[in-house]
Amino acid sequence: MQADILSIGDELTSGQTINRNAAWLGEQLQLLGIPVRRHLTVGDNLVEIVGTLQWTHNGCDVLLISGGLGPTDDDLTRQALAAAMHEDLVTDDGALREIEAFFARLNRPMPAVNRVQAARPASAQCISNPNGTAPGIAARWGNCRVFAMPGVPREMKGMFTQAVVPVLAAMGTGTVLRIRKLNTFGMGESALGDRIKDLMKRGSNPSVGTTVHDGVVSVRIYARGSSDEADAVIRSTSAELVNRLGDLIFSTDDEPLESVTVQLLRQARQMVATAESCTGGWLAELLTSVPGASECYSGGWVTYSNALKASELGVDSQMLSAHGAVSAPVAAAMASAARQNAHAHWGLSITGIAGPDGGSPEKPVGLVFIGIAGPDGVEVRRFQFPGARAQIRLRAAQMAMTMLRLKLIGRKFEDVVPS
Amino acid sequence: MQADILSIGDELTSGQTINRNAAWLGEQLQLLGIPVRRHLTVGDNLVEIVGTLQWTHNGCDVLLISGGLGPTDDDLTRQALAAAMHEDLVTDDGALREIEAFFARLNRPMPAVNRVQAARPASAQCISNPNGTAPGIAARWGNCRVFAMPGVPREMKGMFTQAVVPVLAAMGTGTVLRIRKLNTFGMGESALGDRIKDLMKRGSNPSVGTTVHDGVVSVRIYARGSSDEADAVIRSTSAELVNRLGDLIFSTDDEPLESVTVQLLRQARQMVATAESCTGGWLAELLTSVPGASECYSGGWVTYSNALKASELGVDSQMLSAHGAVSAPVAAAMASAARQNAHAHWGLSITGIAGPDGGSPEKPVGLVFIGIAGPDGVEVRRFQFPGARAQIRLRAAQMAMTMLRLKLIGRKFEDVVPS
Repeated sequence: MQADILSIGDELTSGQTINRNAAWLGEQLQLLGIPVRRHLTVGDNLVEIVGTLQWTHNGCDVLLISGGLGPTDDDLTRQALAAAMHEDLVTDDGALREIEAFFARLNRPMPAVNRVQAARPASAQCISNPNGTAPGIAARWGNCRVFAMPGVPREMKGMFTQAVVPVLAAMGTGTVLRIRKLNTFGMGESALGDRIKDLMKRGSNPSVGTTVHDGVVSVRIYARGSSDEADAVIRSTSAELVNRLGDLIFSTDDEPLESVTVQLLRQARQMVATAESCTGGWLAELLTSVPGASECYSGGWVTYSNALKASELGVDSQMLSAHGAVSAPVAAAMASAARQNAHAHWGLSITGIAGPDGGSPEKPVGLVFIGIAGPDGVEVRRFQFPGARAQIRLRAAQMAMTMLRLKLIGRKFEDVVPS
Repeated sequence: MQADILSIGDELTSGQTINRNAAWLGEQLQLLGIPVRRHLTVGDNLVEIVGTLQWTHNGCDVLLISGGLGPTDDDLTRQALAAAMHEDLVTDDGALREIEAFFARLNRPMPAVNRVQAARPASAQCISNPNGTAPGIAARWGNCRVFAMPGVPREMKGMFTQAVVPVLAAMGTGTVLRIRKLNTFGMGESALGDRIKDLMKRGSNPSVGTTVHDGVVSVRIYARGSSDEADAVIRSTSAELVNRLGDLIFSTDDEPLESVTVQLLRQARQMVATAESCTGGWLAELLTSVPGASECYSGGWVTYSNALKASELGVDSQMLSAHGAVSAPVAAAMASAARQNAHAHWGLSITGIAGPDGGSPEKPVGLVFIGIAGPDGVEVRRFQFPGARAQIRLRAAQMAMTMLRLKLIGRKFEDVVPS
C-alpha cells in the first residue's frame, strides 16, 4: 500500500507559502503505517492538475489532495477531478444545504458564487466541513481512494482527522508507526549520538534518530508493528535511552525546558528571581511564557549597563573595574542580589558577550558566566557558547534554566552535563 | 519558459522535514521571471526517482533538483539521473580533487565513501560546492537544463546563487519580477486592506497583497516587466502606499520593528529603560536582540510581583490596592520610575492581563496599559489585544516600541494609529 499527496495552489509553486500541509499529511500517513510515495504540487491550472492526476493516480492506493476547493474561478480541483475521471460534475444537494446552513449560522445570505462548492464528480461523495464552506470530496478511481480537502490548514486537518482517518485505518495492514521524542539540553548532538550509537543503526525497528532545534537535541524513537508491539518497543527503548542519557533528558514529546522548570518550582513551592545582562530579559521572558509563572517567578533585573548593575544590584564598582562586567565575581554578585532583593528562594544571573562586537582574546564572543544563588550559597559556571548573537543568548538562558532544574531535582551539574 | 523543482529525500515524503528548499527555489525562479510549473518530492528510491525524472523533464525548460547527493547508499540522485538520461556514470577528476581539497583543509583524510560524490552522467558537468563535499551536477537533457544541488539548505542556496542564477538569467525572457515589502504595525489586516483596496485588484501589474506575521501586517508589491519598468513601478506604487498608510509603515523588506526603534534611538543619542509586568522581559529582549543596543538601552525591570513593583519602582501600595496592578496609574508610575532610576531619556512600561487566567468582566484577558515617560511627562494608553497569551504579550511589546517610535519621529500616536 502506498499514498501520494497532491497540493494545489499558485502560492505554493511560487514559493510564497511553504507547503506545511504536505509535510503534515505525510506524517499522518506514516503514523497510520501507510508509506508515502511522492508529493506533487501544482498551480491553479486546469490542464496541469488534470495531467498530474492522471499520471499519479494509477500507481497509488490513496491520493490525498489539498487546496483548490474555494468558491472563486481559480479553484479548479472539483472540475479537474471530474475531467480526469471522465465524469460529469454534479451538484450535491446535501452539501449545498450544509453550505447554506453555514452562512445561516453567520446570519448572512449565501453568495451565489459559493454554490459551485457543492459540485462533485458524479460517482463521488461530498465530505462535511464543520470549519468552513468548502466540502471535501471522496472518490473511488480504479484502485485508488481519492480524498480532496480544503487548503486552509485548520479545515484540512479537521476533515482529515474526522472523515479520512477512519477510512484509511480500516484499509490499513494493522501495522502502525509510534513515535516518541525525548528532549535533552547540555550535550552536543554528535557526543550524544556517540553515546547511543548502537541504538541508531539504520533500518532497524525501532529506529532511533537525533534532531536539533534551538539548542535542544531531541532523540526520536520510531517503532513499527501492531499497536501493542509498537507500544512495547517504545517503552523498552525509552527506558534504555533514559538509562544512557539520564537527566540530560528534561522532557518527552513537546514540553519545553521553561515549562519543566516552572513545574518543578511550583511543585517545590519555591520562587526564583533573575538578573540578566547579555540575555537582555530572554530568561525572564521564557519563564513568564508559561501560564502560572507568577506562582514561582517574582521578577528580575535587566542590568544592561554597568551603572544599573551597581545601582540596582549593588555590584561593587571596584569589582566591575577589576574583573570586568563579564566575570565570575560579577555573576555571583548579580545572582545573590536578585535572590535577596526579591526575597526569593533562588537567584539566577547571566553575564556574557553575545557579539557580534565586544569580544577580545581573553574574553571572546560567546563567553558567558551563569550564577545561581540559593539557600546554600552561590555557584558560578563559565561557558563558551558557539554561534551568533541570538544562539549565544538563547543557549545562555537555556543553560541557566538547566542549572536551576538540576538543583531542583537534587543532581550535581557536573554529574549530568559533560564539560 | 517554465521550470520544475524536484526534491529528493525520505525525510521530506514522510513529513519529518518541511520542504522549505522547494519554496525558496520557487521564489528565486519567480524573481528571475521563470514561472514554476510543479514541485515534485520523492523518497530515496531509485525506481521512483528515475520514473519521476523521465515523466517531468519533457515539458520543462529548467529542472532544479535538490537532495540525494551525499556519500551514503541512500543518496541516489547521481545514479538516477544517469539512468534516466541513458548515460554512464563517470568520475569527474576535477570534482574529485575538490573533495580531496575539502578534507585537506579540515586536516582529515578523505573517507573512501566520499569518492562516489565525484560521479556524474557522462555528458554532464560538475558544479563546485565551496560549502561542503557534495558537488552539484549541470546537464543538458533534450530541451531541458538540469541542475542537481545538495539538500543542505546553506549549500543549495550558495550553489544556486553562484552557479545556477547566471545561467538562468542568460536564458531569461528579459521579464523580471521585483518584490518590495512594506511593514506596518498598529492596524488590522482587513482595515488596512480597505484603505488600499483599489490597489489590490487581482491580476493587475503591479499586484499588491497583504500578509500577517506575528502581528506585523506587510504589504507586498509585485511588479513585472523589464528591469527598468519593474523598478519604476515599484517606486511609484511604494510612493502611493506611503501616501495612504503614512507612518503605520515602519520599515521595508526584512527590517524588524525593534531594529528600527534602536536605530532611531541611536540617531537621537537617547537612552530608554523598561519596566514590564505581563510581558515578562519580552520588550527588553526584543530591544537587546539588536546588535549595538547597549548604546541606547540602559536596562529594565521585570516587576512580575506587586512586591517588586513597590520595592523596585516605588509603585505606591495604596495605588496598587485602589486601582489594581493592571491600571493606568500603575503603568504611569512604572514608566516614570524606570526613566528616573536608569537616568534615561525615555521610560517604557507595560502592565496587563496575558491570560489564560486572571481575567474578569472589568479587566478581561488582553487588557494592557502601556506607559511612556519622557522629558515632557508621562502618557498612558489602554489597549485590548486579541489572541492567546503569547500573542497578547508580543502585541504589547510591539505597541510599546511603536509608541516610542512615533515619539522619536515626532508624530502624535492618534494621528497615525486608528483607535
